[in-house]
Amino acid sequence: MNYTKQLLEKVAANNEVIGVIGLGYVGLPLAVNFAEAGIKVIGFDKNPDKVDQINRGDNYIKDIRDAVLREVVENVSLCATTDFSRINECDALLICVPTPLDRFKKPDMSYIESACTEIGQHMKPATFISLESTTYPTTTEDLMLPIIERESGLKHGEDFWLAYSPERVDPGNKSFHTRNTPKVLGAMTPDGLEIGQAIYTKAIDHIHPVSSPRVAEMVKILENTYRLVNISLINELALLAGKMDINIWEVIEAAKTKPFGFQAFYPGPGIGGHCIPLDPFYLEHIAKQYQFDLSMIHTAGHINMRMPHYMYIKIATALNRHQKAVNGSRILFLGVAYKPDIDDARESPALEIMETVAHKGGQVEYHDPHIPSVQMHHGASLDSISLTADHLAQADCVVLTTNHSAFDVAFIQQHAKLIVDMRNMVEQAGGKVYKL
Amino acid sequence: MNYTKQLLEKVAANNEVIGVIGLGYVGLPLAVNFAEAGIKVIGFDKNPDKVDQINRGDNYIKDIRDAVLREVVENVSLCATTDFSRINECDALLICVPTPLDRFKKPDMSYIESACTEIGQHMKPATFISLESTTYPTTTEDLMLPIIERESGLKHGEDFWLAYSPERVDPGNKSFHTRNTPKVLGAMTPDGLEIGQAIYTKAIDHIHPVSSPRVAEMVKILENTYRLVNISLINELALLAGKMDINIWEVIEAAKTKPFGFQAFYPGPGIGGHCIPLDPFYLEHIAKQYQFDLSMIHTAGHINMRMPHYMYIKIATALNRHQKAVNGSRILFLGVAYKPDIDDARESPALEIMETVAHKGGQVEYHDPHIPSVQMHHGASLDSISLTADHLAQADCVVLTTNHSAFDVAFIQQHAKLIVDMRNMVEQAGGKVYKL
Repeated sequence: MNYTKQLLEKVAANNEVIGVIGLGYVGLPLAVNFAEAGIKVIGFDKNPDKVDQINRGDNYIKDIRDAVLREVVENVSLCATTDFSRINECDALLICVPTPLDRFKKPDMSYIESACTEIGQHMKPATFISLESTTYPTTTEDLMLPIIERESGLKHGEDFWLAYSPERVDPGNKSFHTRNTPKVLGAMTPDGLEIGQAIYTKAIDHIHPVSSPRVAEMVKILENTYRLVNISLINELALLAGKMDINIWEVIEAAKTKPFGFQAFYPGPGIGGHCIPLDPFYLEHIAKQYQFDLSMIHTAGHINMRMPHYMYIKIATALNRHQKAVNGSRILFLGVAYKPDIDDARESPALEIMETVAHKGGQVEYHDPHIPSVQMHHGASLDSISLTADHLAQADCVVLTTNHSAFDVAFIQQHAKLIVDMRNMVEQAGGKVYKL
Repeated sequence: MNYTKQLLEKVAANNEVIGVIGLGYVGLPLAVNFAEAGIKVIGFDKNPDKVDQINRGDNYIKDIRDAVLREVVENVSLCATTDFSRINECDALLICVPTPLDRFKKPDMSYIESACTEIGQHMKPATFISLESTTYPTTTEDLMLPIIERESGLKHGEDFWLAYSPERVDPGNKSFHTRNTPKVLGAMTPDGLEIGQAIYTKAIDHIHPVSSPRVAEMVKILENTYRLVNISLINELALLAGKMDINIWEVIEAAKTKPFGFQAFYPGPGIGGHCIPLDPFYLEHIAKQYQFDLSMIHTAGHINMRMPHYMYIKIATALNRHQKAVNGSRILFLGVAYKPDIDDARESPALEIMETVAHKGGQVEYHDPHIPSVQMHHGASLDSISLTADHLAQADCVVLTTNHSAFDVAFIQQHAKLIVDMRNMVEQAGGKVYKL
């Protein structure tokens, strides 16, 4: 029997089972979207706490509405499991595992490798497999394919189909979520592309097919490299503008009036999150295999890496004007999330600045309405303190590191002795307010 | 008498005379816009040919409609002159002179200095002066002001007002022209800003005021640095993609489906024109005074500078596949303008590639429907040949350097033996077509 025809018929009848591997901020919304569309979904994760939470109908991802998760769990469209042998119940497997960098900024592919091994060991024939995790071009074809074929003994293009379709999740984005964000899809064969489109169309409004997985892999890298490079550029210009007595925020607002050929980026204490600080370095990694030096990414990465240090200098300079040293001063950071109104502190520059300040003898405190405690590098954890008039007044310096909309800037300004504003939150600089 | 009040009243009554210094692609459209609004305009230029053409009603700027120029000249709203002593008839002076880089990529400020000297020697009190030319931040305050005060013996803020308002002319842009492109304006004093707004509002729909000339100077640099950096980034990624067997054009089209946080730029043989290749280097120049290294601009500039050389290699590689050397081959370039559908070859990368090919022994020919002849570096001039089937067939290699919409790609593809396409004009690569 022809597996392509068999699977396409199953999909057309809405009888396929979707397996989503990795139930984080990418995988869980995707699983919920398929379940909402009436497709049976099995979510796989190695973390039993996450699995239990989902099976109880408890939501842990901000961008999903609690009621929606509860509903799809209650009507048995979605269940979660730590048992990867249930992969053999699935007709399609969507891989949403992390692809972090290791301590030497090299891509850590172990999550993808492990997922592929599990898939190879448990999958049945006639399965469609798609990777959603960001990675360097050639990963799908050169890393995943050999593992899956070896572990399964099955043959690509006959027994299964491999594709790459990058996630474009933007946590906190009010306008664009999983369903209405167009999705790029590149498969290794035309029938793989046909199957992938038939499946993804159920959860996502618009699928943009490309000619190969490597093109799709490059798309995601381009999108995030664009952001890294432009944020680094505006950070560098902000540092120069500071020396030239030019308000960079005013410059950006004015440049935005150009009705063509300009997109505004804003300076800040550095780049955080799971994508922009990492993705370009996957490309840098693979470029080395081609004897190619990505000078723009390298330079941008350098600026970004240095920003937290410059921000430390900014704090020290502000304190110095008040005849105080960092050493012995009490410094209150407002916001440790890497962007406003989210509860994620991954790769957050605020943490790195706090580390540096603590290392130099400063007494570090923080408040974040969305993040009750953080882990510092040396292992100790720090709890968010309340944002009271007293706490503000007792600090020698208050540092605005994340522009959460919950922050009452007037209240902060009223009670703080000294403010270093890294996010243009205070309207007028001067006096006790120092701006990036 | 209070000069501010006097000038504002004159402007309110539409009785002011505007002097536009420099009648190129920025100055002439601006002059025409004021004249169309019923304001008397005197255009100043040192080139008697330009002045004569304007006074005859002959238009030489593509973005101006011929009939409009003729009309404003005939009804005596606009006249042109080489006589700079007539500056004393003007109430406002708008400076639109070139600010090129010299051979060592240092800003050549001589045109601005010369304009300021003429102004200082001839101006009457109660004159508003605005610079439109792109330049490094601090030019207006630190370079222009001392020259004008010294030459005129007048005092800024009392006898005259100085401002900076960058041009945003985008030649060939069908949607945005002088009047409907918002204009940034930064003056040295509040009354200067008030006067400037009152004047510019007559020719331009939206004025965006900023707090100082240096902020406005930085705005223009930011806009064009953004473009330089992003074009350089995509050029670098295109070179890597070529090695990785990834079609960069397909990648960009797919990335464009992201509905937020992305703006598409396209690779090409290098950056041309009067703005993008130059403006960032003004900033690099002034940054040195502040002991500041603009690493992003430096890196972007490096990539851009090397692109014509990479393009030469591309041509040599394509010829090599056909067992031919550049030396002795006949190579036909299609398009020498720096962007499509314009007649401007300033800083055009096509010219540099042609120089290199000629230097290596290639027989260089070109066709451009908008540019009948070009000047090569060694002084010889080269004429555009006609785009015939014979000329295409006789070339060992046809290079697509500018994507003029007049080019019939199917015709070119039909008759050319070998094509190197630097602008993604041919839909399918492969066979005799090599793409960037």
